Amino acid sequence: MKAEIVTIGDEILIGQVVDTNSAYISKELNKIGVSVHQITSIQDERVHILQTLKEASQRAEIVIITGGLGPTKDDITKKCLCEFFGDELIRNEKVLKHIEYLFDKYIDTPISGLNRDQALLPSKAIALHNEYGTAAGMWFEENRKVFVSMPGVPYEMRGLMEREIIPRLIKNYARPIILHKTVITYGLGESAIAEKIESWEDNLPVEVKLAYLPNLGRVRLRLTAKGDNEERLKNLIESEISKLHHFIGDIIYGYEDEDPVEVVIGRMLAEKNWTLSTAESCTGGRLASKFTKAPGSSASFKGSVVSYSTEAKSEILNVPEEIIKKHSVVSAEVAKAMALGAQQKFHTEFAISTTGNAGPTKGDSDAELGTVFIGIATPKGVSAREFNFGNHREKVIGKSVNKAMELLQESIIKVRDDI
Amino acid sequence: MKAEIVTIGDEILIGQVVDTNSAYISKELNKIGVSVHQITSIQDERVHILQTLKEASQRAEIVIITGGLGPTKDDITKKCLCEFFGDELIRNEKVLKHIEYLFDKYIDTPISGLNRDQALLPSKAIALHNEYGTAAGMWFEENRKVFVSMPGVPYEMRGLMEREIIPRLIKNYARPIILHKTVITYGLGESAIAEKIESWEDNLPVEVKLAYLPNLGRVRLRLTAKGDNEERLKNLIESEISKLHHFIGDIIYGYEDEDPVEVVIGRMLAEKNWTLSTAESCTGGRLASKFTKAPGSSASFKGSVVSYSTEAKSEILNVPEEIIKKHSVVSAEVAKAMALGAQQKFHTEFAISTTGNAGPTKGDSDAELGTVFIGIATPKGVSAREFNFGNHREKVIGKSVNKAMELLQESIIKVRDDI
Repeated sequence: MKAEIVTIGDEILIGQVVDTNSAYISKELNKIGVSVHQITSIQDERVHILQTLKEASQRAEIVIITGGLGPTKDDITKKCLCEFFGDELIRNEKVLKHIEYLFDKYIDTPISGLNRDQALLPSKAIALHNEYGTAAGMWFEENRKVFVSMPGVPYEMRGLMEREIIPRLIKNYARPIILHKTVITYGLGESAIAEKIESWEDNLPVEVKLAYLPNLGRVRLRLTAKGDNEERLKNLIESEISKLHHFIGDIIYGYEDEDPVEVVIGRMLAEKNWTLSTAESCTGGRLASKFTKAPGSSASFKGSVVSYSTEAKSEILNVPEEIIKKHSVVSAEVAKAMALGAQQKFHTEFAISTTGNAGPTKGDSDAELGTVFIGIATPKGVSAREFNFGNHREKVIGKSVNKAMELLQESIIKVRDDI
Repeated sequence: MKAEIVTIGDEILIGQVVDTNSAYISKELNKIGVSVHQITSIQDERVHILQTLKEASQRAEIVIITGGLGPTKDDITKKCLCEFFGDELIRNEKVLKHIEYLFDKYIDTPISGLNRDQALLPSKAIALHNEYGTAAGMWFEENRKVFVSMPGVPYEMRGLMEREIIPRLIKNYARPIILHKTVITYGLGESAIAEKIESWEDNLPVEVKLAYLPNLGRVRLRLTAKGDNEERLKNLIESEISKLHHFIGDIIYGYEDEDPVEVVIGRMLAEKNWTLSTAESCTGGRLASKFTKAPGSSASFKGSVVSYSTEAKSEILNVPEEIIKKHSVVSAEVAKAMALGAQQKFHTEFAISTTGNAGPTKGDSDAELGTVFIGIATPKGVSAREFNFGNHREKVIGKSVNKAMELLQESIIKVRDDI
């Protein structure tokens, strides 16, 4: 079963907004066996919208549309849908009640005619309840094709996908099963990996596809299996991964089904009742942001000191000033002292620290641009390693975060398994 | 002059990767007067790639392609380009030298045949130097249309855009001028704003377009002017914005040309030689990440304590335990004490704090889900305000960050202008 996504909104085409909705929608559809064949982003422009809907519905059975449902004049999706289906707008009383309720409960300004007009929906549409906002979702069926229209506000769209659209698709349509499993490797480039696993790759079963996803110091290998029998597909993937271990077992650090590495680390810590803190200089709070993103993360993550100034390193993290003077603020000694400082201040078993020069100009240190030290404190001691992550600020920060995650996961495993 | 962007890669269509490249490319093209008419994302699949290239080139004069240039078997863009242009691959010695140099200098594993094959380029292509990676960019001209192919790795793509593609477009093509200015408002919903400014909106000059961009508690109004005379367009936009002030001057907080609000705040602080720190509970490091993202941010941003645990609030930020006991950890008193703690610990003029329940379950406090207190310490004193940002974790965190930025900017202006 094939779907296409159409996102409508000038803000995407001028680059003011990154289209995160499409990735979310694709992932959710994929989980239930619907593959996304194309994503098309276009402006709020009538002729182009109509043309795109026509083309998308010729290629796919499901067309998912986001954006252009606001109450203001620049939002024209509803009008275009009426034109596309030869339909007209009629008032939906249930939707109107919900809009009035939201204004009553959450919004300070009085409700207006424009707000009430959001309850005008095409007569052929089934209204989908949007718990978090005033623009209802819409579901159309025509010539055995499904069209769904949702607002572009990410959490409103996600609520609609989760509660309305995915359940309807599951209930009404037979779909194949699509399984993904992603192997995370660190330490070798994609072409070096490709050469090592060539004979394995050439002999993959027809149901299994392989993709290389290189990103800032790590390469993820994604295996995808498609078919009707979930058990069989699972076994196929597991058996291929176990074969893969013969070729590159030494660089495999973990797997991603659903969860990013920070969630995997959080789970490893929680299982042992261990806790974590961070002391961040060049990563500037990004490690903390990652660890606190997931619900329930406060069980294992206790906090961070972002010590962007040299004084903060000594005053808050207790890094001895003579160490900073002797070795400079970008050094293994300071990274170790920062990690120990966080470990002590937050009373955690594990602590990870970063100090480096992300550029574009040199900071409080003479270290070469791109030089980063990552320190790790564990119940067994403290260590630090030096890296050079290149001459591009964003690359340096991104690689520092990824490498810190890698070293941390490695350390937790070592302490846990007493290696 | 119209462009289309085609992004190639299964990882986008299954939602494993968010396509941030298209937003960057759109923004850069827009700045030089090239408007992006459509963005299309498709899989690494030959027939679909060829079809999409054909359609895109029928609609636009410039087709920008990203992705599918890696050294491994799943990358087929180069082959498809050969087929599309009736061309063949030949070795480019300059590109080969660069690949060998990169391996020599930065990569531990020895260079392989697959890596060397990245120097095979279609004979009709002009090779574009990719400083940060082994996949060269390519520039084709055929039937007065331009086709550009770049790798999908974001910083490699950006290097190519900046140094190769934008300069070539500027040099070789006449383009109109497109100017944007975005007005940032806080405190009113988009429909309430729309009603207030209706007569202004209806009388906008034909060259000026308006868009509403609502996002987590603030509405941005984007004015776009297109034409040939930059001076005239600038004046048009400024004159419309000054008219706009008569209608909603009280809710306008600032403008965005290029810069996000954290950069504007950084500049306001740097002008006065003031500094900033943060004490973050429910925002978990996101404020620090924002402030440290920009190069040179260490001039005004000194650091953050992410106090995810209650103990960290008292031990590191010196929030008195009796205040926490008496008022609970989610309270105005704790928010104020956190802000003061950060202000003192980091020796900064300004400090901002957040403490709240982002959900999905209640934390160390009985406060209702969505309750957030934001504290601000300035040279003139400390204050805190209470908000309820709803029942959705991501919304609560996002709205907290936006609201904190708003209050901070307001406070800086008040202290600066001695209001």
